[in-house]
Amino acid sequence: MSGDLRHAVLQANLDTVRHGLVISTFGNASGIDRAAGRILIKPSGVPYDRLSAEDMVACDLDGRAQDNRLRPSSDLATHAVLYRAFPGIGGVVHTHSTYATIMAQARRAIPCLGTTHADYFYGTIPVTRDLTPDEIAQDYVGNTGRVIAETFAELDPLAVPAVLVAGHGPFAWGRTPAEAVHNAQMLEFVAQMAWHNMALNPDPQPISEALLDRHYLRKHGAQATYGQGDVQ
Amino acid sequence: MSGDLRHAVLQANLDTVRHGLVISTFGNASGIDRAAGRILIKPSGVPYDRLSAEDMVACDLDGRAQDNRLRPSSDLATHAVLYRAFPGIGGVVHTHSTYATIMAQARRAIPCLGTTHADYFYGTIPVTRDLTPDEIAQDYVGNTGRVIAETFAELDPLAVPAVLVAGHGPFAWGRTPAEAVHNAQMLEFVAQMAWHNMALNPDPQPISEALLDRHYLRKHGAQATYGQGDVQ
Amino acid sequence: MSGDLRHAVLQANLDTVRHGLVISTFGNASGIDRAAGRILIKPSGVPYDRLSAEDMVACDLDGRAQDNRLRPSSDLATHAVLYRAFPGIGGVVHTHSTYATIMAQARRAIPCLGTTHADYFYGTIPVTRDLTPDEIAQDYVGNTGRVIAETFAELDPLAVPAVLVAGHGPFAWGRTPAEAVHNAQMLEFVAQMAWHNMALNPDPQPISEALLDRHYLRKHGAQATYGQGDVQ
Amino acid sequence: MSGDLRHAVLQANLDTVRHGLVISTFGNASGIDRAAGRILIKPSGVPYDRLSAEDMVACDLDGRAQDNRLRPSSDLATHAVLYRAFPGIGGVVHTHSTYATIMAQARRAIPCLGTTHADYFYGTIPVTRDLTPDEIAQDYVGNTGRVIAETFAELDPLAVPAVLVAGHGPFAWGRTPAEAVHNAQMLEFVAQMAWHNMALNPDPQPISEALLDRHYLRKHGAQATYGQGDVQ
Repeated sequence: MSGDLRHAVLQANLDTVRHGLVISTFGNASGIDRAAGRILIKPSGVPYDRLSAEDMVACDLDGRAQDNRLRPSSDLATHAVLYRAFPGIGGVVHTHSTYATIMAQARRAIPCLGTTHADYFYGTIPVTRDLTPDEIAQDYVGNTGRVIAETFAELDPLAVPAVLVAGHGPFAWGRTPAEAVHNAQMLEFVAQMAWHNMALNPDPQPISEALLDRHYLRKHGAQATYGQGDVQ
Repeated sequence: MSGDLRHAVLQANLDTVRHGLVISTFGNASGIDRAAGRILIKPSGVPYDRLSAEDMVACDLDGRAQDNRLRPSSDLATHAVLYRAFPGIGGVVHTHSTYATIMAQARRAIPCLGTTHADYFYGTIPVTRDLTPDEIAQDYVGNTGRVIAETFAELDPLAVPAVLVAGHGPFAWGRTPAEAVHNAQMLEFVAQMAWHNMALNPDPQPISEALLDRHYLRKHGAQATYGQGDVQ
Repeated sequence: MSGDLRHAVLQANLDTVRHGLVISTFGNASGIDRAAGRILIKPSGVPYDRLSAEDMVACDLDGRAQDNRLRPSSDLATHAVLYRAFPGIGGVVHTHSTYATIMAQARRAIPCLGTTHADYFYGTIPVTRDLTPDEIAQDYVGNTGRVIAETFAELDPLAVPAVLVAGHGPFAWGRTPAEAVHNAQMLEFVAQMAWHNMALNPDPQPISEALLDRHYLRKHGAQATYGQGDVQ
Repeated sequence: MSGDLRHAVLQANLDTVRHGLVISTFGNASGIDRAAGRILIKPSGVPYDRLSAEDMVACDLDGRAQDNRLRPSSDLATHAVLYRAFPGIGGVVHTHSTYATIMAQARRAIPCLGTTHADYFYGTIPVTRDLTPDEIAQDYVGNTGRVIAETFAELDPLAVPAVLVAGHGPFAWGRTPAEAVHNAQMLEFVAQMAWHNMALNPDPQPISEALLDRHYLRKHGAQATYGQGDVQ
């Protein structure tokens, strides 16, 4: 079980590179074993081509590393806050993928402009407010997680499994590390679509509620469990 | 014959990937044996790198699968409507290629801005109207085909072998599955040109009727059969 | 000698693909043996991966093929007009490279916005006027060459070795087929720069005459012969 | 020692190609041995795939080559001025990377729009003024270095290790040749982000001083030495 999660977290980190979602080493993926109360996350500063499953760093839900060999990703505290705030999620991914980062820097939420968006995100993908100087000075990384949680106060994090952190970049999540990576990849695609639409029309027209419901609910509605739908 | 079509449909599906027209598994290509009244289409949810010719699912023109092993693509009903509405076509391709999807989401028809467009599409590539809530609630996939057919009420589908479905993405077709893929690839190219033109000038100037005729008719006019022209 | 030119023309055609300047089969390169009065050009419709030096089609300067095995590129007449109009050139390349085609479709000349442009093109890269319906109806391909020559009535074609044909795409040339390809590649780069500048500022500021002269004349001035300069 | 620097300069030149920062041969990287007063720089006109460590040309700080075998890059005088003006740097890289060149041609400084920018550049990346006709006519390459130094009269070149030369392209530097290349790569990324932001909003909002300080100073502040921070 624990070994499976190690491999899943390793694979999630490698897949962010394979899908072109990170430049240099700017990305990290994690997974959680809820029963054991243990997060596994990419170590800090190890090149992707040398990562092994054994390198994934075990931490508790307060973001303290439980082994000493390698230090965890410097974004661990954000992951830990998200796991505590969103009990349904099992994996978190942070990338600097091109268009999602552009939208995060432009502080532009991504409205639902097409059916691919609707297949994965049930409505607008939000952008956080800016952190205050105090929030930045004290526990900056943890507060990044808290401002995400605040942004989702009225939202279901599994219905909209991604966010743009203002002036920073995207975080995505899912029930598993693999699903988090897939959501990060879909976020990049819909961000690319949205940027190009906004360049032609600053206020592009979202698809209808009916079409959003049709696409989202065929895979995620009351008659389905999250992620069990056949994605085509 | 049937074996040839199986291979042609498999190849068309693989070529959509090779030409970069699909992300993840978001695409499907089909072909039709008009004499046998049989459509062959990509199965749902099988990864592209494991697809074989035998996996292509045989269906009738009402969109009912004729074998039980694999389920057909969830877009089958759209393909089936197009085969019934456009008797001259032999292959249909659906992709989420980048710029064609951007234009579909922006609901911007693609005017003929250059000679490559004119070589393949005899005038503006249209965008469908939005589906109504009722059309979405009942037989959504079939109605996607019907709104395409409605868009072509006054158009020759072989003279303009592609469409942008509003808020969704492109469909392209041709006399064969291979030609449908080639048209999907050309659609992506002309959509890329058009987007970049519209970003500089919201209402770009089409080429003259004379130039459109010169390019289109050298390959597709009364003195040629469709597709027999030498493409250079 | 003739064998050398065959290989140079083959290589030029292959290099247009290698540099990403053509999509599908939309491109052609040629070279001329001025002493023999013979043009060698890519044949029409042969896939790039099967082209051999022997496949290059020999033609006279009126654009008549001199051997029967393969038909020459359908753009031969344009090449032939350019060789007659510009006695100093030894190679011609036609591509549909992305940004050069976008600028040709937008009918936007490319001002000299930077030093790379100045290294290769001594001032604005012009766009032709539209052809008239009569010019399109009669000898369209030859008239494409003539409208290019008309555009260069007051310009030195070796000082500005490329043009944008309105609503169509770019042609580039040089003293050799290899130089023509290199100019086509540089044209694509400066077109990409120019498009991105125009998207921020419809009327971007060219570099100074002094800087244009400094960059261009170090390689092409009175104290140098064309192309002998060391490109760094 | 000297052999190590030769290999470091070779590797820096190869890495500019590997990271897609140069087209054709338009780029050069150098390093300096401050104790020996010797610069090593890429030779002029040698194709990248044939470069060896032995080909790196040794020069003094006045920009005079110290060996005769190969001529140094034609941009050597710019590098030499930068090494004299910025005593803390150990490597310089010049590229024509796409978005940094676009911003240089558009004469748009790059404000700090996101945390990746803040991780590497402590505030706005400046653009130089245009050179005067006299500066272009006399010692143009050296004056390119002088106008960069002038631009940094009030700036710490290690806190903002890159510049856009108006109408030309970017230069980046660092304590080592490898760091200079990494900064050139990060410059390209932040230029890409900035261009896309400016295309949506001509005057995009920088991140707060507090966030800039948080990101920059965790790696470069009084309690750290430059470049010793763990980059994540």
